[in-house]
Amino acid sequence: MNIRVKAIVLIFSGLCSLGSLNGQIPMGVTHSGQSTSQAPFPLTQYTELKNPAPTDEESWKDLSGTRCAWGDTYTRYKKEVNPHLNQKKIDIKGWKGERVAAQLVVSSAIDLDNVSVEIAPLTHSSGKQSISADRILKGFVRYVMTDELNKNQKGTCGPRPDLSQFDSTLVADPIDHLAAALPIKAKTSQGYWIRVWIPEDAISGNYSSDVLIKNNHEVIGKLKLTIQVQQRTLPQPDQWAFHLDLWQNPFAVARYHQVPLWSEEHFRILKTELQPYADAGGKVITVPIMHHPWGGQTYDPYETMITWVRKIDGSWWFDYTIFDKWVEFMIDMGIKKEIGCYSMIPWKLSFLYFDQATNSMKELKSKPGEQAYHDLWLSMLKDFAAHLKSKGWFDITHIAMDERPMPDMLKALKIIREADPNFKVSLAGSLHKELSDELNDYCIAIAEKFSEEMKTKRKAEGKITTYYTCCAESHPNTYTFSNPAEGAWIAWYAAKENLDGYLRWALNSWTIEPLLDSRFYTWGAGDTYLLYPGGRTCLRFENLVAGIQAYEKIRILKTELQTQNKTATLRKLERVLESFDELQLLKTPANVVVEKANLFINGL
Amino acid sequence: MNIRVKAIVLIFSGLCSLGSLNGQIPMGVTHSGQSTSQAPFPLTQYTELKNPAPTDEESWKDLSGTRCAWGDTYTRYKKEVNPHLNQKKIDIKGWKGERVAAQLVVSSAIDLDNVSVEIAPLTHSSGKQSISADRILKGFVRYVMTDELNKNQKGTCGPRPDLSQFDSTLVADPIDHLAAALPIKAKTSQGYWIRVWIPEDAISGNYSSDVLIKNNHEVIGKLKLTIQVQQRTLPQPDQWAFHLDLWQNPFAVARYHQVPLWSEEHFRILKTELQPYADAGGKVITVPIMHHPWGGQTYDPYETMITWVRKIDGSWWFDYTIFDKWVEFMIDMGIKKEIGCYSMIPWKLSFLYFDQATNSMKELKSKPGEQAYHDLWLSMLKDFAAHLKSKGWFDITHIAMDERPMPDMLKALKIIREADPNFKVSLAGSLHKELSDELNDYCIAIAEKFSEEMKTKRKAEGKITTYYTCCAESHPNTYTFSNPAEGAWIAWYAAKENLDGYLRWALNSWTIEPLLDSRFYTWGAGDTYLLYPGGRTCLRFENLVAGIQAYEKIRILKTELQTQNKTATLRKLERVLESFDELQLLKTPANVVVEKANLFINGL
Repeated sequence: MNIRVKAIVLIFSGLCSLGSLNGQIPMGVTHSGQSTSQAPFPLTQYTELKNPAPTDEESWKDLSGTRCAWGDTYTRYKKEVNPHLNQKKIDIKGWKGERVAAQLVVSSAIDLDNVSVEIAPLTHSSGKQSISADRILKGFVRYVMTDELNKNQKGTCGPRPDLSQFDSTLVADPIDHLAAALPIKAKTSQGYWIRVWIPEDAISGNYSSDVLIKNNHEVIGKLKLTIQVQQRTLPQPDQWAFHLDLWQNPFAVARYHQVPLWSEEHFRILKTELQPYADAGGKVITVPIMHHPWGGQTYDPYETMITWVRKIDGSWWFDYTIFDKWVEFMIDMGIKKEIGCYSMIPWKLSFLYFDQATNSMKELKSKPGEQAYHDLWLSMLKDFAAHLKSKGWFDITHIAMDERPMPDMLKALKIIREADPNFKVSLAGSLHKELSDELNDYCIAIAEKFSEEMKTKRKAEGKITTYYTCCAESHPNTYTFSNPAEGAWIAWYAAKENLDGYLRWALNSWTIEPLLDSRFYTWGAGDTYLLYPGGRTCLRFENLVAGIQAYEKIRILKTELQTQNKTATLRKLERVLESFDELQLLKTPANVVVEKANLFINGL
Repeated sequence: MNIRVKAIVLIFSGLCSLGSLNGQIPMGVTHSGQSTSQAPFPLTQYTELKNPAPTDEESWKDLSGTRCAWGDTYTRYKKEVNPHLNQKKIDIKGWKGERVAAQLVVSSAIDLDNVSVEIAPLTHSSGKQSISADRILKGFVRYVMTDELNKNQKGTCGPRPDLSQFDSTLVADPIDHLAAALPIKAKTSQGYWIRVWIPEDAISGNYSSDVLIKNNHEVIGKLKLTIQVQQRTLPQPDQWAFHLDLWQNPFAVARYHQVPLWSEEHFRILKTELQPYADAGGKVITVPIMHHPWGGQTYDPYETMITWVRKIDGSWWFDYTIFDKWVEFMIDMGIKKEIGCYSMIPWKLSFLYFDQATNSMKELKSKPGEQAYHDLWLSMLKDFAAHLKSKGWFDITHIAMDERPMPDMLKALKIIREADPNFKVSLAGSLHKELSDELNDYCIAIAEKFSEEMKTKRKAEGKITTYYTCCAESHPNTYTFSNPAEGAWIAWYAAKENLDGYLRWALNSWTIEPLLDSRFYTWGAGDTYLLYPGGRTCLRFENLVAGIQAYEKIRILKTELQTQNKTATLRKLERVLESFDELQLLKTPANVVVEKANLFINGL
């Protein structure tokens, strides 16, 4: 498909310079003229961008009214296509404490002005127990603008100053639990997501419900949903072993919702926006400890959470007010295993501070190896260590590095050790065997592989070992145009590789209008965020969580099987995991691999 | 004269944008290519700008060698002219503790490569006592570029973006005590200043000395100097009653000498630069309490000495590190009667602060009458009052205003009273009778006159009442093209009007190269400074000090005459003072009026 949405691209590009919190956008209205989630929070209604794809008339010719049927949770049903689904009844298996999901699709040949979905109580076959409504997340699967891989089909790295050079389409991704009802235009399809978080104390067995699809008060579809609750129990997310490190961007939240940074209002909204990360078992608190650790690569750059002040006698003064407030907030959210502090070696070796003498912001430009760099960071890290100890956070804090030239990293490490020999250090970068002992949390790209020996040694020493994907990978990935099952695949792969978890550099570095347009002026669409405003999750994120749940189930099952000496089953499980090979993803799509693997473990 | 120095003007204009301390000027070198006083401090040698005036050949035709003779202290002898002076012996009268001065002029028809001046010990006629060399200030009267009054001859207000539109000439002004010797080119004149600070404990009578003018080792002139020390004693400057308020600009000092603001080096240099102000009995410490109280009107704008930080909870935090250091320094210098704090009502109603949340400088734009303005200043002034009380400075501190619209001033006053009813307030502005009771220090322009009733009431209440001149006045004034005697006239006028003193808005708001070029891109040349770098004083400043000494002498004499009931003499004195009428200055130049008045009081 090669339909280009030039008009939108132009508006988008024209407003890229508005990346500051003081932008000229009128309060509560974004460049598309729609309200943001500012007032009242959250926005419950919004209008998607126009579908650049024409109606697939052929698919609609045999439908005169409306059809409702179950689809699957891996598919982005196209708005302009009738998918010809027929399944009226669905059975889903899950452990106690697990989240299971189903997607239904409404395809209509006629205009429907007010479609809503009702789920009757999910009642146990014995009639003795129901799953309460607050365990159910339901919402329309909305359409957002996406683009595509680079022209050479190799990932999506590099700038995209002219988005019209990329195929732009609407794809189903955000799960909009806030819109109670939506109109559905004639000859369009609309997905609807139902996720059931099985209570840990549920009795096992079948829970059934009728799902009613209505247009105003008229029932236009009725589907049967059965949740088959198994015997085993999945622990709560904060008990999960999977080391999930998705970088949070509170600056995007303040800008999008047009609230003052670090205000009560900001934190109130952050609680909503980051709840899905907590519910996914997020482990790491992202902390920029200096101005713009990654330059201005995101629409909302990361500002320092530690205030740097150069006093008139030339000495430094560091204030931790924001840092403390943010870390305490995140710990209260249940995210408390690690504090990742970026960065001693930022992409641009320039350190912005408030200079008291001149009452202005100044930059200290200095690089590892220089005396000024050494003195600055030694002074900063010593002060920081003392503060962390006073808060009881020293042991969870990691001085975090991105991949930088080896000599620079070694120089930085030396200063860290000089400041406090017990400082923990993390790196998301390339595989350097000689660095492994230094790094308490080490994350490498999927294309590189830790040796089994390294992984064993690191595990024995209590060190965290993970992998990441970014714009370099075509598959697996979590672009808005990716196969959503690749989200699940990512966590399965960690299980296969005996890795502790997964890192992604962007949980919510939103584009200017993330609900409408996931394209950005760098990288493939969706690369910069996995969550949508208003605490909205999406096909990509829900699949990732499903994969993490599988990782936890595998961990529990392995222990169980080992305890019970079920070596044959164990071997079968290993064989299933072997199928998670990223080089095979073009041949066998992720949803096929994931579905097959799920069937296996749900059968144990 | 209408000779224009276009080349210099162009360089000057082109560099006006370099007004920041981070300018691109190479260390220690200014735009003319000359060293600044940076290294080593202070600069002892510099080259004046080229004289745009041609040699006055007519005046030189009867001179073949070199002529040295006494001139007077009111005249700017022209470089290109032979003034035909003849006086070889000079007698100067002065009180014990008084500074008295004489100017000699070397006029040479031939090149002299290394002229210096030696003063033999000033010995009492009894031979019993000498005035030691450290009581003598001597130096060449250097030539600096100046311009002229506005074309309509009415003051010098308004911008001068194209200085070539104004007549530019070299004038004698700075007294360069640092250059031990200078070359004198053929057919030029060179003034030389000798100031003797008579010791308080000197015995009265005549002190004489030979003044030798040498070229290398050759004596080229010999003049006789006699100081006639009278019976009366002038107190030390810190005991003077004259309320001298010349606004200091430490920012210009840091920029010109290229030292970090508020560094030890900066204060070391400030001690030299501000000593003449202390020696003139300066009473007021100038304090900008917010960013740019007068916008960017000076080459080196006034930056706040109080650090304004907006914390993330929206509350304000004020830090007084710079304020304390500056005030303590000035008090140590002996300037401690008043702290003038500018400004609640700055020219641009915008308040710059460091915003901790966004790690950036932000402006709060708010004006009197608005809630935000009220809250900001109430919070600031309460905090400030508490700090001042803790330092013991509350009683000398004045919240200082420039002339602003009356409703704004009344609103500001209300907030000041709300913050602390005992805050002192000062205003340099127009005469508003209804404000007089509110203002502890009230200064109005020379053209306006306080009523005798107001002055009497204010004096009885211990309130300070002064006047000012600025660009509005053609005469009296202290431009580099002004008659230097107008400096003295200014203080005599205060005596005549029974005012407490005089205010001028600029003691040392230097131009880019104050030693070379006193022209600025606004106002008449010299308007922005009365002192030159290196602690150099000048004809204008020395005349001002002479006037202040006369003011003190008149004060002492009046008390003496009243005590002794010498009403006839008192009446004569009043009549002498009556001659200080600014409207007569075009008819009778200041030097004539001042000289006559001096003769009178020195005869008492």
